[in-house]
Amino acid sequence: MQTRPEPADDRPRGRRPGPSVTRDAIAAAAAEVFAQQGYDRATIRAIATQAGVDTRLVTHWFGSKQELFVQVMRLPVSPEELGRRLSAGEPAHAGERIAAYVLGLMDDEAVRQRVVGLLRSAASEPRAADLLRGAVTRTILGPVGALVGGDDAQLRASLAASQMVGLLLARYVVRVEPLASAPVADLVPLVGPVLQRYLDG
Amino acid sequence: MQTRPEPADDRPRGRRPGPSVTRDAIAAAAAEVFAQQGYDRATIRAIATQAGVDTRLVTHWFGSKQELFVQVMRLPVSPEELGRRLSAGEPAHAGERIAAYVLGLMDDEAVRQRVVGLLRSAASEPRAADLLRGAVTRTILGPVGALVGGDDAQLRASLAASQMVGLLLARYVVRVEPLASAPVADLVPLVGPVLQRYLDG
Repeated sequence: MQTRPEPADDRPRGRRPGPSVTRDAIAAAAAEVFAQQGYDRATIRAIATQAGVDTRLVTHWFGSKQELFVQVMRLPVSPEELGRRLSAGEPAHAGERIAAYVLGLMDDEAVRQRVVGLLRSAASEPRAADLLRGAVTRTILGPVGALVGGDDAQLRASLAASQMVGLLLARYVVRVEPLASAPVADLVPLVGPVLQRYLDG
Repeated sequence: MQTRPEPADDRPRGRRPGPSVTRDAIAAAAAEVFAQQGYDRATIRAIATQAGVDTRLVTHWFGSKQELFVQVMRLPVSPEELGRRLSAGEPAHAGERIAAYVLGLMDDEAVRQRVVGLLRSAASEPRAADLLRGAVTRTILGPVGALVGGDDAQLRASLAASQMVGLLLARYVVRVEPLASAPVADLVPLVGPVLQRYLDG
C-alpha cells in the first residue's frame, strides 16, 4: 500500500493512525461502503470504522461525504485519456478502441467495484445521479463532442455514453446473459461499430 | 379508475375496502412505493398504508412482495407486441420502429414511473436485478433472437437491450443532457440505426 505524508499542523488530534493507515486506505474503505450501501445510506462514520480511523481523519482528508464520493467513485476514465484514445489511430475505428478500452478497464476488480457502486448509487439516488451526470458531462461529452462534428455532436456523444452505461449495467450489475459471460473479444466487434455510428452521425 | 369484481369467498375478513379500493389501487400504490423506496426497503405494510387497505388485502390479491413486484413493475412491453413491431414493415427499419415504440411508451407518466422504479431497484438490489434479468430474457431476447439470425443472435439481442436500458437510464434517471431534453423525433433517427446494426449483425 502506498503511503503519503501525514498532514502537518492541522492534523486531527484524536486517535493517531498507524503508518499504514493513509488517505488511500480511507479511499478504499469509502469505495467499498459506497458500493455496498449506496450514497444515501453510507456515512462518514461507517467509512471511518471500515478504515479503522477516527471520523475526523476522514473529513480532514476528504471534507464532506459528497466530496469523498466525487473523489473515490470517479469514472475510471480521464477526459485526457479518452481524448487520446479517440484520436490515436484510424478515426474509422475510434469506436472499437473505446469499447476495448472501457471493457478492458473493467477486468480490474477494484475498477469494476467502483463502477458498479457508481451505477448503483446513481440509479437509485438523485444526489448520486447529479454527481454521475456531472462526471459524464465533463469526462465523456467534452472529448467526444470535440472529436465529432455537426450540430448534434453533444446529443450523439451522450447517446454513445448511454450505450456504454447500458452495457456496463447489463453486463456487470443486472448480468443479462449471454452478455454477462461473453469475452471482451466478442463484444468489441459488435459494440465498436455502434459507438462509431454515433461518432460519425 | 377501473374497478374489478371483489374476491368472493376467500376475501380477507379485516377492514373492508370501499368500492374504489381495488386491485388496481393496490397496484398503483405498490408501483409508487417500489419506485420511491426500491425493492428491499419497500414493505407490504407501506404499500397497504399507501393504498389505504389492510395488509391482508394486498397479500390476498398479490401473494408475496416478490410476486407483487413482478406484476406491477413489469416491462411495459409484451413479447407478442415486440415481435409484432419487429416484423411489421421493412426489416431494414425494425430498429427505428422499436426505438420509436419504446420512447413513445415513456411519454405516459405511469409507464415512466414504473420503468424508472424498475431500473432503480434493479441497479441497486440483487433480488430486483434477478427479476429484471428474467423479464428482459423472456420479453426481449426471445422475440429479437427469433427475428435475427446467426450464432450470436442472443448476444446481439442482449446488446440491443443494453442500449435501450442505457438510453432509458441516461435520459430518465441520470438525466444527462442534451439527451434528457431531446425530442423523441430527434432520437429515433440516431438510435434506430444502432439497434438495426445489432439486429443485422
